[in-house]
Amino acid sequence: MFRGKDKVADVHVVIVGAGISGLTAAYKLKMKDPTLKIAVLEGKDRVGGRTETVPLVAYTGSDSWDLGGQWVGRCQVHVTKLLKELQLKTYPQYIAGKKLMQLGQGKVHSYTSTIPRLSILELLDLYLFMSKIEYYQKQLLVEDPYSHPKAVQWDAMSAAAFLDRTLYTSAARGTVAAAMRCVLGCELSQVSFLYYLLYIRMAGGITQLIEATENTAQESRICGGAQQIAVRLSQHIGEESVHLGDAAAYIQQENSKFVEVWTKGGMKFCAEYVILATPPKALEHITFNPPLSSEKVDFIKRMPMGSMIKVIVTFEKAFWRASNMSGEVVTDGGISRVHGCARRPLCITYDGTSESGCPALIGFVGGQPAVEWGKKTAKVRQKAILDHFAFFFGEEVYSFLDYVEKDWNTEPYSWGGPVSFVSPGGMQNFCHAIQHPEGRLHFAGTETATAWSGYMSGAVEAGERAALEVIYKLRPKSLNPEEIVLSKSSLHREKKESHEAVKRNMYGRAVNVVGAAVITCGVATVAVYFMNKYTQWNVKLPFLS
Amino acid sequence: MFRGKDKVADVHVVIVGAGISGLTAAYKLKMKDPTLKIAVLEGKDRVGGRTETVPLVAYTGSDSWDLGGQWVGRCQVHVTKLLKELQLKTYPQYIAGKKLMQLGQGKVHSYTSTIPRLSILELLDLYLFMSKIEYYQKQLLVEDPYSHPKAVQWDAMSAAAFLDRTLYTSAARGTVAAAMRCVLGCELSQVSFLYYLLYIRMAGGITQLIEATENTAQESRICGGAQQIAVRLSQHIGEESVHLGDAAAYIQQENSKFVEVWTKGGMKFCAEYVILATPPKALEHITFNPPLSSEKVDFIKRMPMGSMIKVIVTFEKAFWRASNMSGEVVTDGGISRVHGCARRPLCITYDGTSESGCPALIGFVGGQPAVEWGKKTAKVRQKAILDHFAFFFGEEVYSFLDYVEKDWNTEPYSWGGPVSFVSPGGMQNFCHAIQHPEGRLHFAGTETATAWSGYMSGAVEAGERAALEVIYKLRPKSLNPEEIVLSKSSLHREKKESHEAVKRNMYGRAVNVVGAAVITCGVATVAVYFMNKYTQWNVKLPFLS
Repeated sequence: MFRGKDKVADVHVVIVGAGISGLTAAYKLKMKDPTLKIAVLEGKDRVGGRTETVPLVAYTGSDSWDLGGQWVGRCQVHVTKLLKELQLKTYPQYIAGKKLMQLGQGKVHSYTSTIPRLSILELLDLYLFMSKIEYYQKQLLVEDPYSHPKAVQWDAMSAAAFLDRTLYTSAARGTVAAAMRCVLGCELSQVSFLYYLLYIRMAGGITQLIEATENTAQESRICGGAQQIAVRLSQHIGEESVHLGDAAAYIQQENSKFVEVWTKGGMKFCAEYVILATPPKALEHITFNPPLSSEKVDFIKRMPMGSMIKVIVTFEKAFWRASNMSGEVVTDGGISRVHGCARRPLCITYDGTSESGCPALIGFVGGQPAVEWGKKTAKVRQKAILDHFAFFFGEEVYSFLDYVEKDWNTEPYSWGGPVSFVSPGGMQNFCHAIQHPEGRLHFAGTETATAWSGYMSGAVEAGERAALEVIYKLRPKSLNPEEIVLSKSSLHREKKESHEAVKRNMYGRAVNVVGAAVITCGVATVAVYFMNKYTQWNVKLPFLS
Repeated sequence: MFRGKDKVADVHVVIVGAGISGLTAAYKLKMKDPTLKIAVLEGKDRVGGRTETVPLVAYTGSDSWDLGGQWVGRCQVHVTKLLKELQLKTYPQYIAGKKLMQLGQGKVHSYTSTIPRLSILELLDLYLFMSKIEYYQKQLLVEDPYSHPKAVQWDAMSAAAFLDRTLYTSAARGTVAAAMRCVLGCELSQVSFLYYLLYIRMAGGITQLIEATENTAQESRICGGAQQIAVRLSQHIGEESVHLGDAAAYIQQENSKFVEVWTKGGMKFCAEYVILATPPKALEHITFNPPLSSEKVDFIKRMPMGSMIKVIVTFEKAFWRASNMSGEVVTDGGISRVHGCARRPLCITYDGTSESGCPALIGFVGGQPAVEWGKKTAKVRQKAILDHFAFFFGEEVYSFLDYVEKDWNTEPYSWGGPVSFVSPGGMQNFCHAIQHPEGRLHFAGTETATAWSGYMSGAVEAGERAALEVIYKLRPKSLNPEEIVLSKSSLHREKKESHEAVKRNMYGRAVNVVGAAVITCGVATVAVYFMNKYTQWNVKLPFLS
């Protein structure tokens, strides 16, 4: 595979992966020293990694939509800053009007606030669960989640096992499961409860993670599509440095002075440093000599990629808005009639109207539904997805202009989506394995971030951090004192909660306190009733006349 | 990567993987029709897969030892039958004398029966746990474990979570964890409890799985080493058919008539059928066009390989036998003083004396200890392992003749050992993904077996079954009625418990019944004591005077 006649290029830094993380690292390196020679290697025939923007037939003729990552929020400081630098604008996610919720065999409920339309008992159940999660996640150290006294127990437990023991109503369970199917692309039974908490911690809270209001992860979309970030970054660093369609295959650190990187296509690069800006699983497809540390090898085994199919359907009119619907649906799918598929496909839908006003709906099929529907033919799947959209938004769905779906499971060099997560029992080597440099190899990719890991913002943070680590070794004098601190510590950043997020938390806490009080009063009343019945104590409660 | 000038060969069947499973398939195919043209592709430069036999300095000058799989038992019918056909003999594992056990910071205990030296309470705890496991595992259908009413709950739970809730004494927990570290090469927190039960089910019971007495998995070793199986099989099918050092890289089923297989080295094979006899994870390293089904892709993500380092130390004398020690140790490692390693390395040791009487000790470092010690330099690791052996068997350990260790994590085309296991939440697609043919692709490998999955016997069973599936399509007339039934059903076999195993189970059950009775009596006594103290009932128990 690796022959003597290979073309050889000498560079300062090889970056593996031309997603947002790898290209941000290249951009940061070039910013610090424009004379640095950089080669970015990418297996796909495009830049952008898990962001991909495509043109679709639209109301105005044609417009662009994102098949991959699409949302950013002001709370995501790293990507927000980069968007400004790249002169990319955002527009808010449309959320006005009624939202829909449908769970199990129940009928469709609509609601307008951020509080889903559930019964009082179900809402209390959900809020108590969320407050417990918030209470736990805040106790975790992002730098070392395994140091928590309950870490071993939480890691040995799947998030589903925690749900089973904490939530009492099936509606609350269904809501949480549907949300996480789209956040991580997996079933809750597949993810370590400790990593589940950490993931929420890295997003600054469960509300920021799952909502689409101000200062959340789903606040805005990028004008022109998210792939613009990678395209503009590659223009900044020089497109001749980005080698598409040729993946790194073999990486050798034979002596302590340089690293050799061979590509599948037979290119050979000699570099001083290598930044691996790929999903963790992608490292299994590269042969390392010497091998990666046993901790990294073992950890990668425990961090599979999620399963996700994203669907975009464009229309002439945003007919749902006319019925005062926001386009937002949360559903566990209900029961499917298609053999081999337990649930109907969609988990979450949103209004996907473009910045220029071309109407569209966006749907996510995540976790086990993505696996089951991924096996069906394109025709069967499209029919089921359109039927499911029509179930919520009416027959007008069938007069769509364009329909496109992307099954990220079949995407080469991503092998899944939207993000990698840690399996139960996988967290014991997290701290040493996730982003610890090995010799001249440094590690980026959104999974290695400490804030908004799994999101575009995490990809930017990780790319910048890996670049600083390399610059600290290559050009230490070009760093300012703050950057030196950042470059020295692999896990370096504590998130600052924005003012709004704090306010939101206060509100959430108030709801929780009221909920807890109601439950306590109820339990006390029942207890006192029985006490009075069977003893002569005759206790009186202050809140009962 | 795949050029037009590639060398092309036309064959009936391509088999990917020259381990025991792939070569058994080839052997079976050739037995049915010697005219069949077969090509076996293997990435390693040797046959045998997870069996590898090497010469070591020994008492007599030199002898052979197994770095990989080494044990067989009469209860493993498939490998036993094959060994006879290949005229390979076995000799019993030496188990006479005292066994040792050391847990936590406790001292070393010795015992001679199969019952470890624990306190009555710890033994009761252990036996009740084992009887619960036996009770559960027998309820599982090997063909469809997910059909069990508790399957979803058990799959969402790690085996460690079940342990935590079922075992009360830390000694019992330590014993079970140490045993499974070597059986699956993982921590119990990393394996789905449903798969844990299934794995025991497929071995016919927990006793058969973990003991080294008659009719268990560790009963005998193969004269000349286990790699002999693969060597002799490849001689039978013709060594020219086995292509070493050239892995399959790309498999295309473009039309319905044949499959094209390209190797990394540029060979191209056209075949009517392909048998993939690799660990599930290895399929991720092959590009399939069209892609494998979404269920298979998702399932493979959830079936990582374990972590295992095996150590063989040879001596002039079997000095432990002189002190009436069997060489068998079960330990959770106690506390290590080496930075970065929580426990000392060894989990299980055995007498490894060869058939010709050359003394040796064999040690296993499995699960997290394999990860932590795998990161250390060879020198540091060897010292720690020898120290650990010496801790149990005395200073004579240091006058060894030869020392060899094999870290299976760094083995190419195995990427771990001894076996793949299913992560929590991974079992929902097990039934459809584990061995379901896809077009002209059939699947073998020990992980796909229904009896003794994970063992050499499972590899043989799976290879034979895949061969029958292919022969049924290629040469249906050469099959007898029984074989036709076998070839038609992907999951076909119910294990028959041997007479001995049934007796053993009776014994185990008797112990459990006694244990349960003692506990019930104890609880009843305490309950009645308090009842009599606080009421006027004055109940008398028949077993208390």
